[in-house]
Amino acid sequence: MTYCVGMLLDAGMVFLSDSRTNAGVDHISTFRKTNIFERQGERVMVLMSAGNLAITQSLVSMLREAMGAPDGRPSLWNVPNLFEGARHVGETLREVHRRDAAALHDFGIDFSVSLILGGQIDGEPPRLFSIYAAGNFIEATPETRYFQIGESKYGKPIIDRVLRSDTRLEEAAKCALISMDSTIRSNLSVGPPFDLTVLRTDELTIATSAHIDVRDPYYTMIRTRWGEALRTAFNDLPNPSDLLAGLATE
Amino acid sequence: MTYCVGMLLDAGMVFLSDSRTNAGVDHISTFRKTNIFERQGERVMVLMSAGNLAITQSLVSMLREAMGAPDGRPSLWNVPNLFEGARHVGETLREVHRRDAAALHDFGIDFSVSLILGGQIDGEPPRLFSIYAAGNFIEATPETRYFQIGESKYGKPIIDRVLRSDTRLEEAAKCALISMDSTIRSNLSVGPPFDLTVLRTDELTIATSAHIDVRDPYYTMIRTRWGEALRTAFNDLPNPSDLLAGLATE
Repeated sequence: MTYCVGMLLDAGMVFLSDSRTNAGVDHISTFRKTNIFERQGERVMVLMSAGNLAITQSLVSMLREAMGAPDGRPSLWNVPNLFEGARHVGETLREVHRRDAAALHDFGIDFSVSLILGGQIDGEPPRLFSIYAAGNFIEATPETRYFQIGESKYGKPIIDRVLRSDTRLEEAAKCALISMDSTIRSNLSVGPPFDLTVLRTDELTIATSAHIDVRDPYYTMIRTRWGEALRTAFNDLPNPSDLLAGLATE
Repeated sequence: MTYCVGMLLDAGMVFLSDSRTNAGVDHISTFRKTNIFERQGERVMVLMSAGNLAITQSLVSMLREAMGAPDGRPSLWNVPNLFEGARHVGETLREVHRRDAAALHDFGIDFSVSLILGGQIDGEPPRLFSIYAAGNFIEATPETRYFQIGESKYGKPIIDRVLRSDTRLEEAAKCALISMDSTIRSNLSVGPPFDLTVLRTDELTIATSAHIDVRDPYYTMIRTRWGEALRTAFNDLPNPSDLLAGLATE
């Protein structure tokens, strides 16, 4: 399983992915799920992937192959905007599907993959897309400023409560890490190290890219203090005494 | 969709269910998902259900039919312990499956149902079971003191952080309501009113049974203050400045 989240704020974008890959509980490995494509000052794109590792690796290889081809065919280096970038990724994913899906199906394996693509190409604002296995995709809007892929539910409530368009990038990164921590506590198949990538609007380059392992002091602080803070917040709320009048003697 | 949670504490048990039932977004109704079977001083059982409403209603009707039958066949009134109670519920569910599953399958409808059964029968401690669609079941243990059915993930982190065997019943009820609130915020198909049922160990009767609607003052307080408390806890945690050294100029 996987957990990745991408956030689109006024100030820029935040991407966080875990790196646990498993094929059964005794076959667990670490693979990066974040790929960065950057030409400083011109375009910067971040692609995160969840699902079948063979599929996502094929996809990324084919995207890179197109980027290295001399013939001017579409690639992430020459798409004019990020919408066309998402389309190109979707088309490439469909090519992987044409090559592999039938063979996978014969072995009872679904063609399961989902992607988050975000970034900025000179001339337009930062944009964020969620791309499905069928190659279709949706774009983040002012009402929905983030996408999650993989094991998304455990870590969703904190994002829904905290994230706004004017959230600062540091705070959004903190929110993403808390969301990751909540996911990890409830799902063993999501795990560190994490890749945190931050872009600032109109810089057209990566502002920060951090590889965070389980001993990282900030993440350790989040792990311990967020749980404590939740318990304190919980204890500070009154108990439902009126609702439970029958328990008054407790 | 549905969200139900049952908790087994030293002091007793807490059950909470929502009441939203939907078959498509324009066919939403309210049905109670909590059934109580009680003979004061001898046995008390609470059954909560998620899944296909026609199946769970058939199941409860058949359980009640057996309880009213004069022939002494197994029923929730005469099972000697709660393990046998869970078995009886599972067997009855298998009977519903034999009657209906093939016809449902013809219409592309899964036989989807899951149940939580908890309570106490005189002579043994309170026990809590999670029963699957196949009629098999598992029991809560000191390591796992609660079961959820339905849309369980959004509301799981707060329970994992707070619930312990010595949690007081009032606090456990508060935890269940916060867990419900987190679920509702993320999934439209879970909704009020809620049924909250509390048993105290060795009383062999319902201590409290509350029907909580959306205007209930305590639930309204939870809705507003829990979100605020989370945001405060979030703001109190330091930002990841060291991780994001590149953003120091922000």
